[in-house]
Amino acid sequence: MAAKYVSINNELFLEEDAKIGVSDLAMHRGYGIFDYLKVIDNRPIFIEDHFNRFYNSAKEMYLDVMLDRQQLRKAVEELVEKNGIPTSGIKLLLTGGYSEDGYRMGTPNLVILQYPLNLQEENKPDTGLKLVTYDHQRQLPYIKTIDYLMAVRLHPFMKEKNADDVLYHNTGVITECPRANFFVVIDKEIITPRNNILRGITRSKVLNFKVSGYTIAEEDFSVDDLPNVKEAFITSTTQYAYPVTMIDGKMIGDGKTGPATKQIREQLFKLTYAQ
Amino acid sequence: MAAKYVSINNELFLEEDAKIGVSDLAMHRGYGIFDYLKVIDNRPIFIEDHFNRFYNSAKEMYLDVMLDRQQLRKAVEELVEKNGIPTSGIKLLLTGGYSEDGYRMGTPNLVILQYPLNLQEENKPDTGLKLVTYDHQRQLPYIKTIDYLMAVRLHPFMKEKNADDVLYHNTGVITECPRANFFVVIDKEIITPRNNILRGITRSKVLNFKVSGYTIAEEDFSVDDLPNVKEAFITSTTQYAYPVTMIDGKMIGDGKTGPATKQIREQLFKLTYAQ
Repeated sequence: MAAKYVSINNELFLEEDAKIGVSDLAMHRGYGIFDYLKVIDNRPIFIEDHFNRFYNSAKEMYLDVMLDRQQLRKAVEELVEKNGIPTSGIKLLLTGGYSEDGYRMGTPNLVILQYPLNLQEENKPDTGLKLVTYDHQRQLPYIKTIDYLMAVRLHPFMKEKNADDVLYHNTGVITECPRANFFVVIDKEIITPRNNILRGITRSKVLNFKVSGYTIAEEDFSVDDLPNVKEAFITSTTQYAYPVTMIDGKMIGDGKTGPATKQIREQLFKLTYAQ
Repeated sequence: MAAKYVSINNELFLEEDAKIGVSDLAMHRGYGIFDYLKVIDNRPIFIEDHFNRFYNSAKEMYLDVMLDRQQLRKAVEELVEKNGIPTSGIKLLLTGGYSEDGYRMGTPNLVILQYPLNLQEENKPDTGLKLVTYDHQRQLPYIKTIDYLMAVRLHPFMKEKNADDVLYHNTGVITECPRANFFVVIDKEIITPRNNILRGITRSKVLNFKVSGYTIAEEDFSVDDLPNVKEAFITSTTQYAYPVTMIDGKMIGDGKTGPATKQIREQLFKLTYAQ
């Protein structure tokens, strides 16, 4: 559930009154973009990176953002203050707007939602994620659009496969999870796919890390390489670096959080709390 | 603009009050399906075909429809009567519903909108459409989802190319237009793509026609075959069979409505008014 107040076009509404007219192009044509950032103790984390991506996604989809960066930051801060929730996830959602004919763009609607975030999950037990591979290439992968049609449709499939999440591949070449980037460790190299993915903010931080005993590279690899993988993890705003211990029912490494994953996870915590 | 009244979950609202909460999964994840049918002089056209497809799309996307076929038909009839518009387009829209976490499905929201339809367009001047080809494969092509992310994003591209619509191909193999099926005439054969398309209701009617002097087949063909095309047309609920006279700036045939297109268009009018 979103918090008590929601911002729509820079006006605050109670969550139960936060509504959008049925002619919005997100409803009719799944047309919109978004971004999602963390706020910890009232400090937004990597907000400039998220804003960079948000405004870029908007531009790529020909959507005007009614607020400039300074105004948008103020809108986020006001929402956080009004809701009185110092630690949360903030979702910025920009739709195709009210469409006269249900097909052509209108003036975009900007919705900002706050979701309480439980930071206890930073101390989650060391269970690791189970993934199941699926052959699918997201359209416009570099843009953070609202297109999660396949991901949501795959929920029953995931359940059937006893998996926590899906790992997409494009006719064999591994790309990403629906809401996270994917990394593996092969020999002493930490590798993450280079092409046809959304370039996550957390992923970009990891690519700049120095990890003792390992090199880091962006490089495509395939499902056939998975038997050689010693460690695997995903990165995302909410999950930091989180271990993957099983893919398609086969254990990765010894099924525990590996040393490279641990180092990266700790560096991400440090970087986050240094913000 | 939709007509005065809109039905949301089987309740009528004035268009300006017809709103959906911001937690709906269409807004957050572009998750939903729809169908669109014509009503002429209060008679819904091919409604059973549209209902078949609508309920099938819902099933394929794991969405429950709160109304059975009889109730849905009644809801459509009530909306038509309340709006007092005897000739119109009816859009049935079914979304992923209010989602607790902005990712998992809720109880679907069913929205029915009526759009006035100008039947003068059945007597449109014989100009023909200009198409521009674009390499893109729609995900889940057989399901009528709300995913038109690429189609809407291509509006500026279409304008730049001086085209009325896009013709998708999948690495060279022609599939469909974003909102219409595509047919060509090569020699004395009327051909429409077989694979990776949405099977339109109008398309299915045409496939059952007898067209004097021609055979009709479902068969894939490629952009390389376009120079051999004598006639081309699209089919859709609003456009019936409508001539295509230019593709990628090259004239099709003599640039006029061809004899096969004319026969099919007339048979579609007849079939429609026989309903």
